[in-house]
Amino acid sequence: HPHYKAPRGNKLHAKSWQTEAALRMFLNNLDAEVAENPDELVVYGGIGQAARNRESLEKIIQVLLELDENHSLLVQSGKPVGVVRTHPQAPRVMIANSNLVPAWADWKHFEELRERGLMMYGQMTAGSWIYIGTQGILQGTYETFVSCGNKHFDGDLRHKLLVTGGLGGMGGAQPLAATLAGATFLGVDIDPTRIQKRIDTRYIDKMTYSYEEAIQWVMEAKEKGENLSVGLVGDIGDVLERLIQDGITPDVLTDQTSAHDPLNGYVPNGMSLEEALQLRKDNPELYKEKSIKSMARHVELMLKLQEKGAVTFDYGNNLREFARQGGCENAFNFPGFTPAYIRPLFCEGKGPFRWVALSGDPEDIYTTDQALKEAFPENDHLIKWLDEAREKVAFQGLPSRICWLGMGEREKAGLIFNDLVRTGKVKAPIIIGRDHLDCGSVASPNRETESMLDGSDAVSDWPLLNLMSNTAGGATWVSFHHGGGVGMGYSQHAGQVILADGTDRADECIRRVLYNDPAMGIFRHADAGYDKAKEVGDNFGMLI
Amino acid sequence: HPHYKAPRGNKLHAKSWQTEAALRMFLNNLDAEVAENPDELVVYGGIGQAARNRESLEKIIQVLLELDENHSLLVQSGKPVGVVRTHPQAPRVMIANSNLVPAWADWKHFEELRERGLMMYGQMTAGSWIYIGTQGILQGTYETFVSCGNKHFDGDLRHKLLVTGGLGGMGGAQPLAATLAGATFLGVDIDPTRIQKRIDTRYIDKMTYSYEEAIQWVMEAKEKGENLSVGLVGDIGDVLERLIQDGITPDVLTDQTSAHDPLNGYVPNGMSLEEALQLRKDNPELYKEKSIKSMARHVELMLKLQEKGAVTFDYGNNLREFARQGGCENAFNFPGFTPAYIRPLFCEGKGPFRWVALSGDPEDIYTTDQALKEAFPENDHLIKWLDEAREKVAFQGLPSRICWLGMGEREKAGLIFNDLVRTGKVKAPIIIGRDHLDCGSVASPNRETESMLDGSDAVSDWPLLNLMSNTAGGATWVSFHHGGGVGMGYSQHAGQVILADGTDRADECIRRVLYNDPAMGIFRHADAGYDKAKEVGDNFGMLI
Ligand SMILES: NC(=O)c1ccc[n+]([C@@H]2O[C@H](COP(=O)([O-])OP(=O)(O)OC[C@H]3O[C@@H](n4cnc5c(N)ncnc54)[C@H](O)[C@@H]3O)[C@@H](O)[C@H]2O)c1
Ligand SMILES: NC(=O)c1ccc[n+]([C@@H]2O[C@H](COP(=O)([O-])OP(=O)(O)OC[C@H]3O[C@@H](n4cnc5c(N)ncnc54)[C@H](O)[C@@H]3O)[C@@H](O)[C@H]2O)c1
Repeated sequence: HPHYKAPRGNKLHAKSWQTEAALRMFLNNLDAEVAENPDELVVYGGIGQAARNRESLEKIIQVLLELDENHSLLVQSGKPVGVVRTHPQAPRVMIANSNLVPAWADWKHFEELRERGLMMYGQMTAGSWIYIGTQGILQGTYETFVSCGNKHFDGDLRHKLLVTGGLGGMGGAQPLAATLAGATFLGVDIDPTRIQKRIDTRYIDKMTYSYEEAIQWVMEAKEKGENLSVGLVGDIGDVLERLIQDGITPDVLTDQTSAHDPLNGYVPNGMSLEEALQLRKDNPELYKEKSIKSMARHVELMLKLQEKGAVTFDYGNNLREFARQGGCENAFNFPGFTPAYIRPLFCEGKGPFRWVALSGDPEDIYTTDQALKEAFPENDHLIKWLDEAREKVAFQGLPSRICWLGMGEREKAGLIFNDLVRTGKVKAPIIIGRDHLDCGSVASPNRETESMLDGSDAVSDWPLLNLMSNTAGGATWVSFHHGGGVGMGYSQHAGQVILADGTDRADECIRRVLYNDPAMGIFRHADAGYDKAKEVGDNFGMLI
Repeated sequence: HPHYKAPRGNKLHAKSWQTEAALRMFLNNLDAEVAENPDELVVYGGIGQAARNRESLEKIIQVLLELDENHSLLVQSGKPVGVVRTHPQAPRVMIANSNLVPAWADWKHFEELRERGLMMYGQMTAGSWIYIGTQGILQGTYETFVSCGNKHFDGDLRHKLLVTGGLGGMGGAQPLAATLAGATFLGVDIDPTRIQKRIDTRYIDKMTYSYEEAIQWVMEAKEKGENLSVGLVGDIGDVLERLIQDGITPDVLTDQTSAHDPLNGYVPNGMSLEEALQLRKDNPELYKEKSIKSMARHVELMLKLQEKGAVTFDYGNNLREFARQGGCENAFNFPGFTPAYIRPLFCEGKGPFRWVALSGDPEDIYTTDQALKEAFPENDHLIKWLDEAREKVAFQGLPSRICWLGMGEREKAGLIFNDLVRTGKVKAPIIIGRDHLDCGSVASPNRETESMLDGSDAVSDWPLLNLMSNTAGGATWVSFHHGGGVGMGYSQHAGQVILADGTDRADECIRRVLYNDPAMGIFRHADAGYDKAKEVGDNFGMLI
């Protein structure tokens, strides 16, 4: 395949930085350093793609090179389908991926459409061109583990063993996040190439095919209070079963196998990866059946370990739902990570703020790191993270950074970045985006909106209002997806990416979009009755 | 209840015509002349509401009175939930109604949320504030009947009997549309007050409780070639059964009972309206069961009449789907009206273009009628319609007009209207909108997108791209709804309304939005493989 790589430097190929930024981030999503499988245009999360096919990819590039500031490109499930009339303060690209009318919104119908070339799976940041490699999820995972440590272990994860499954695109962030948070880590993946990738990028310390060896390593490390991370090749269900047999109970237990997709993601118990790949093709129905049954077993084992005292939570892959479908009736007996650890942050408009140096120069990111540390001197947690990240996180593709910022903070950070570009302190514009997993951008009753206070888990008016607010505010590109994270039928979510190119136009757009975007989180959680959100909303004088 | 009425004249109550227009149209939707049940804030189509409750209604008015041109109001299922930062070329109001994450997107879950005050049903133009009474659907119904006449009866519906059920908010347009098209008409409704309302507004000629009398009237009229319309009080299923017994076969057979909603809409066979209302409250489950069974019987009878030669089609109320669920296996043996009669129009970007004189002065509408006749002198069909409408259509609420216009035509008409305002030829600004049922704004596999050429019926990326295009283009308010027409789970659709206030700003927004909006229909149908859409797209040089 052609070797996808975003252009670097501050020379324009497109007509403006707005389209240049979209072009670079689109290609960056497919950079072999970033994407899980660029050959198939797959970025992460099972089959999350950046474009529908090679032809669409080329057409997108072509249109972006020609588009002016009074027009916008429309992308429908990874295919460019039209150009409409807009203006310089409007998004340059508007994307809708994988959306299906509810009564048809399942994997089966989606697969039919995909096979006929009519759709692709956008996941969250794959089809919306703001995936930045494993670092993207690293900070979120780190926040979650720290928050878990605060809640259950007095803020100290040393001498604690964290066990999980899945070390893929997102799950691969777990070992580093865990060790950053101080824990000893055991991760299980059926695919050795996935673990090797984490070794190569310094996200995980050691790898083995032997259960005995892995256990010896982690039990010794736990004993000593060492934050070692170990990747074990195998089926997560089998490993949990052995742990129970051996009387080993993890302190923290979760999972990030690609359970959201029982056909193209999760690998059923009792077969090798090769056999699984073959069965997928030969008998998809049988595969799915086996997959769902294995998930039921997997969750049964998690529930057993929970009973024995493991702090157990679902990590947003819809594992419990499919386990329930596979016959495990009390699958929802352990909580999802959002109500357990993330919702308090959402109530302050906090979410995964990320940015990328379009110059390609790591120094530009260090400059932004420094600027943020100066802007938020009282925020110890943030400063610790920025320091750790600089030291331990290897960049993938264009240099980027992520940290969780809340209401007020995002707007402030955005304006600072725009100023760095205006005054030439960084070498080219900076692009600011976020995951679709954010405080006011997603409806996903088994994940982000699980157990809302007022029972409004399934109400998806909110991500739509988020989409409209960011489109009207002037984000540089916007997106609306279905099925990210938890799979077809289970979520709807919106994304936005905004350019800091040092212009006054950018200042205005940033002031609007980076206010609106976290504001949606405040509106949504205040409306649902969360006191914290009402308090923050009152402080900002923003509730009507 | 307070008597809702939009202010008239050209004096502003709000800070700009953008918000004044939203305010007037919101109140106009609830005007007793327009709305089916203003007491309950119900506008049309079963329980389609304009606001969630009285409190939300008052708050919406209050915010609209205060909102400036750098902010926009967010409405979530009829409740105002926030104000975000935007700019003068962005929508002033952004609305998301009745949207649910697909796996929860059914009436049952919706009703639970509605009972807890968390949602309302937006239908298509109820919650998006651009319902204009029965005239709104009149033109669409007329286009459909004319198109049916062209296809099956050499363009002549005289001496033809058209039979249908349901004379409510939308269905009440059928008698006038049918007689305008030349046919003899028999409409059946279980609720006499609904028929009385059509008598009062001159949409229907005669009303009776007697089957014998109704038959005598229509058979005589048919014989003479008179375009008489008769409303008969009764259950549509019972009447169809009698027709079969009596050997009477309608020439055209369709239905517009509120079948989309088996609980709060359709009235089951074998009970009086009063008994039905009681059972709804006492035993909703039983009601629904009876309702679905009655629909199965209803469709069985339609199929029998189809066999005997009646040109039979579904008129967009999802009757076939529920009949299928009720046990009628071949319910989909007669087609929906879109593939049968409307899709060819969609391929030219044609759709239900409507506008309202905010002055409240009927003369303003006559001025626009005249301007359109001059702008499109070659369009005989349009001119005939405008003349008939002026003569036969009684205004409800603010004076308004509707006609189907296509790619190019809408933009042209919008600019002409803006010019009429600018030059003072009309007394106040004009607001331009449309139904969510349009060429590129809806995904509804049992209705607007039934039997698409490429099988993409359920792909709802398209209405989302429509929403984004119109938000970015600068419509005055935008909306995204779920479940309109065919009920929860079965459709997703976008709306837009744009102001012609005589300013340059409006010229710019109109040039963008009234291009983008029909363009979505061309993109969507060209992508699906329709030659006509490709041809139109090529003519406009708009395909990429
Ligand atoms: N919590 C979050 O914030 C968040 C965010 C995005 C995605 N997710 C979800 O997390 C999951 C993982 O995402 P990803 O991008 O890493 O997916 P991925 O497809 O890149 O990786 C999944 C990994 O699971 C492994 N696996 C599958 N079945 C297994 C089994 N039985 N035993 C052991 N390993 C197995 C695969 O080999 C693969 O390496 C997805 O379901 C995704 O939707 C969570
Ligand atoms: N084709 C279109 O363009 C289009 C557009 C919008 C809505 N619709 C659909 O058409 C249907 C009608 O819409 P509406 O606004 O008129 O609804 P409505 O609720 O105002 O009227 C429905 C009427 O059907 C009558 N009815 C119910 N059950 C009956 C029975 N068994 N026998 C006789 N009459 C019965 C009711 O008394 C009522 O008057 C809805 O399902 C709506 O979604 C179609």
